[in-house]
Amino acid sequence: MFSRYFPILNWAPSYDRETFSADLVAAIIVTIMLIPQSLAYALLAGLPPEVGLYASIAPLVIYAIFGTSMTLAVGPVAVASLMTASAIGELTARGTPEYLGAAIVLALISGLVLIAMGLARLGFLANFLSHPVISGFITASAVIIAVGQLKHIFGYDIEGHNLVEQVSSLVSGLSATNIATLAIGGAAAGFLFWARRALPPLLVRAGLSNRLAASLSKAAPVLAVIATTLSVYVLELQSVGVSIIGDIPRGLPIPTLPEFDAALWGSLFLPALMIGVVGYVETISVAQTLAAKRRERIDPDQELVALGASNVGAAVSGGFPVTGGFSRSVVNFDAGARTPAAGAFTAIGIALATVFLTPLLFFLPKATLAATIIVAVLSLIDLNTIKRTWIYSKADFTAMLGTILGTLALGVEIGIAIGVLSSLALHLKRTSQPHFAIVGKVPGTEHYRNVRRHSVETTPGVLSIRIDESLYFPNARFLEDTINDAVSLDPSIREVVLMCSAVNFIDASALESLEQIDHRLKDAGLRLHLSEVKGPVLDRLQRSDFLEHLSGKVFLSQYEADQTLKNTCSMTEGSPESMGAETNPGKHRDKNLGPSNNSNDAS
Amino acid sequence: MFSRYFPILNWAPSYDRETFSADLVAAIIVTIMLIPQSLAYALLAGLPPEVGLYASIAPLVIYAIFGTSMTLAVGPVAVASLMTASAIGELTARGTPEYLGAAIVLALISGLVLIAMGLARLGFLANFLSHPVISGFITASAVIIAVGQLKHIFGYDIEGHNLVEQVSSLVSGLSATNIATLAIGGAAAGFLFWARRALPPLLVRAGLSNRLAASLSKAAPVLAVIATTLSVYVLELQSVGVSIIGDIPRGLPIPTLPEFDAALWGSLFLPALMIGVVGYVETISVAQTLAAKRRERIDPDQELVALGASNVGAAVSGGFPVTGGFSRSVVNFDAGARTPAAGAFTAIGIALATVFLTPLLFFLPKATLAATIIVAVLSLIDLNTIKRTWIYSKADFTAMLGTILGTLALGVEIGIAIGVLSSLALHLKRTSQPHFAIVGKVPGTEHYRNVRRHSVETTPGVLSIRIDESLYFPNARFLEDTINDAVSLDPSIREVVLMCSAVNFIDASALESLEQIDHRLKDAGLRLHLSEVKGPVLDRLQRSDFLEHLSGKVFLSQYEADQTLKNTCSMTEGSPESMGAETNPGKHRDKNLGPSNNSNDAS
Repeated sequence: MFSRYFPILNWAPSYDRETFSADLVAAIIVTIMLIPQSLAYALLAGLPPEVGLYASIAPLVIYAIFGTSMTLAVGPVAVASLMTASAIGELTARGTPEYLGAAIVLALISGLVLIAMGLARLGFLANFLSHPVISGFITASAVIIAVGQLKHIFGYDIEGHNLVEQVSSLVSGLSATNIATLAIGGAAAGFLFWARRALPPLLVRAGLSNRLAASLSKAAPVLAVIATTLSVYVLELQSVGVSIIGDIPRGLPIPTLPEFDAALWGSLFLPALMIGVVGYVETISVAQTLAAKRRERIDPDQELVALGASNVGAAVSGGFPVTGGFSRSVVNFDAGARTPAAGAFTAIGIALATVFLTPLLFFLPKATLAATIIVAVLSLIDLNTIKRTWIYSKADFTAMLGTILGTLALGVEIGIAIGVLSSLALHLKRTSQPHFAIVGKVPGTEHYRNVRRHSVETTPGVLSIRIDESLYFPNARFLEDTINDAVSLDPSIREVVLMCSAVNFIDASALESLEQIDHRLKDAGLRLHLSEVKGPVLDRLQRSDFLEHLSGKVFLSQYEADQTLKNTCSMTEGSPESMGAETNPGKHRDKNLGPSNNSNDAS
Repeated sequence: MFSRYFPILNWAPSYDRETFSADLVAAIIVTIMLIPQSLAYALLAGLPPEVGLYASIAPLVIYAIFGTSMTLAVGPVAVASLMTASAIGELTARGTPEYLGAAIVLALISGLVLIAMGLARLGFLANFLSHPVISGFITASAVIIAVGQLKHIFGYDIEGHNLVEQVSSLVSGLSATNIATLAIGGAAAGFLFWARRALPPLLVRAGLSNRLAASLSKAAPVLAVIATTLSVYVLELQSVGVSIIGDIPRGLPIPTLPEFDAALWGSLFLPALMIGVVGYVETISVAQTLAAKRRERIDPDQELVALGASNVGAAVSGGFPVTGGFSRSVVNFDAGARTPAAGAFTAIGIALATVFLTPLLFFLPKATLAATIIVAVLSLIDLNTIKRTWIYSKADFTAMLGTILGTLALGVEIGIAIGVLSSLALHLKRTSQPHFAIVGKVPGTEHYRNVRRHSVETTPGVLSIRIDESLYFPNARFLEDTINDAVSLDPSIREVVLMCSAVNFIDASALESLEQIDHRLKDAGLRLHLSEVKGPVLDRLQRSDFLEHLSGKVFLSQYEADQTLKNTCSMTEGSPESMGAETNPGKHRDKNLGPSNNSNDAS
């Protein structure tokens, strides 16, 4: 029980020397990769560079205590940094102490919300961000981030609140380009693109393993940082207008709690919730992917607590919102990390860098960090997923497109809201008009399938209908219409079997509809039967008096229903409505079926 | 095609003398019942009494042309009248020409919206009002209506915007009671209650048929109207403070179109939409119930057009929003109406009454109409449904309670909004954590059921899992967790079969999750199979490359999957992870199953 909230207790007691060496090697590699990334994402969030480093220390240590993933690495990431900039930018001006204070509060609220959600086991709420919405949102964010960084590459200010304004400002200002800045930024970007694409195969050909090659190429930004910093230092490029990082305060942050300001907290609550949830979705999917490779388990609710605590840790140590990052976690995993201790060692590495390396970063040009960001986020633009979604499902594509356009035109928060609401609306539309099929027996089996799709045997006088949806209020009336229509079209029907294999729930509205249907069928001299009703559904039906009044029976399987009713129907052949002349009720493919299939198949 | 939009073309050509007599008899009975009801509901809506009569003429004729129900009777009803009063009461004062004008515009907008919804085939939207929400809303409305009418019975004004204020105003003003008014109102109410409960059995004992007895007792309000009007006239009770109807303009309304006023139309749009949709839900359920008794069919989308046109007709002829009423339709049906021509004849009857009978209604006390309303709406309070819903489903009960409390405390529109939103939220919560079961074969059949509920046979090395929900974004990650957990708990598993009999849809998010699951299982040396995939789901999967990369196969039935994999597993027994010692893979009840069943069964 205790170890559920402190997963460190599961692995720390058996921590040994071998695991230590593995974790240490991974930590060194990740530290090298994280230094330029942390600086860059602080720049993207509009914060001083050291804040990025601070956000990469305490959260890693805290995650090591609370996290259930063995290899996840938390820290600043691109999308959360953009969302931070977007949330605070509306409240206060960049570069002010209030701006930094708001970023810290944002991390704190986000952390507290995530912890609360974790303790209340509300992790499922994150699921309402569907993959197409997340994917669309990340693609749109990447475009916004990349365009936003171009000002650091070209060396002049870009104005505008949305993408169109920014692009036109970029184009109209081209003559103000700072050539030295562009040279550095362009060279860094070119090198990083090359390192991402061409370096790994080169290293593999030089005899390195695939994994090591991939990990080493992730260190390319460090090379770019060193090379461009040296260039600026040697050529004194800051005197020709190349923007540099400048003085970074040396030393570690002193833990403090932000003061409570009701108005500020109130206006940051919704953005903090969104950053938290979006970050959690990214975190959990990275953690799941890595855990599955080693058949380890992740506790999604505990991950909420761990990520929340990490964010509180970021806030307390002067950082900004953090997330489990994809690329750093993969590097950590590939470099051989075995436990979250690797993260703690990385934190020590970053702390050492914060204390000893920051003077060396004085001449680091902002253009290099911008190039790092641009190259990183462009890989997030996922046109392939957009195309696949278009082919697979127009509804999902609609939600995705809404998210992309909403994010680009109206901002990140509205974009996400549009995505979530439109995916919910499209889902409800679909379930309100479910697919249904009249079914018959697949010859030689006890299996029943759609008469329209399979060559099957039906029993005369028996209408077996399978509704492919849980029965609940949006489709309760649809159910009534469907059965009314089917029965009114074929006067030979005496028995109606509702095959419930796809019915996972019957709510009170649908129960009333079933009662209506049964009542109406009874009035017309027919009987209603159910087959293959799932346990939980049957349990619930037994709480009402529906089954007592049901004109027919509940059968365990459709086969049993069909066999039983076949005999009943042939016994009642004397009655006026029965099929009389039908002498071969066994093998019979009914060709005169009206609405056996919802024409709206694809919806 | 043409006759779809003009259903009159289906029955009018074969209209004969016999049908005419049946319709005529029904029309006379309904007319007698409708006169006091129309006056009463106009009073309830805060409108002059003649407006109730106007709303019972044109709509009936128009419904006869466009309606698909043979016996539905449209006109003013209690709930729509309350909603009308609530919508207009916020904008303008009762008794002014602006108030009447707004009611007419409300009917017009409501009608246009319904027609548009019908032509766009958006009838399914009405389904989002679940039965518990509708039932809770009607119950709450009935309470509000009944309390609101008490002022006419007691003869003094009641103040207050919500129920609590009204009740306290009623109690504190008791000393102002007008005794004569109370005597008339009380007597009328007592008589009507008696007529509703005791009169039908009395008439049956006197030798009448059940139907005729029920229909005749529905005419009781007419007797109350005649008796109390005569009392006032003879005893000159208006001189002691009994409120009477007074002068009703004689003659028929002159068709006019209301003027367009953007501000007014804008503020009435949402209320008009709600009145339209709530009225439609009542209309369609009455129409369905009656149609089913004679195995007739209703076209729900055409009903939208018909009800919309009826409302436009009401507006043009100076009336207010109309709906297909339950009690009048049942009387019409029971009195033997065969076609909508009965409605047209009823309209003629009401028109004759408007021209010739209105002078006789001068002395009709308002207390009598209030008694009519109270007795009618109290039968709408459905405590039994509340209790049944509580027993059947706590989620439905929550939505219902929210609707009732919201309607009573915050008003009709907010009450409905609370109901719809809470029922959607509860639905989403449920599908996000679906029930699932590990299944085995029911001995002696080809049928597979939950190992926890049935004594079944499982195949060692094969995990057959049935997810009882469509796979879509709210539960996509749940699916990953479930399968990860199940597989990580039992190292002997070699083959995973996802039984898809309850999967009605797989959206892009769930497809990605399935790809992840397959990928992870493959990494761990396992295979993923699908069984009983429905046609439309398989069609869609074939648009992606999922099936090409799937590690396992797609089986038509679970039985086929199990039989095939049973052989595979016994062939690969040499490999280290296989069950080795298991020598009896046929009959085997696995007792060591981890999460075979979602503990959250009832949610």
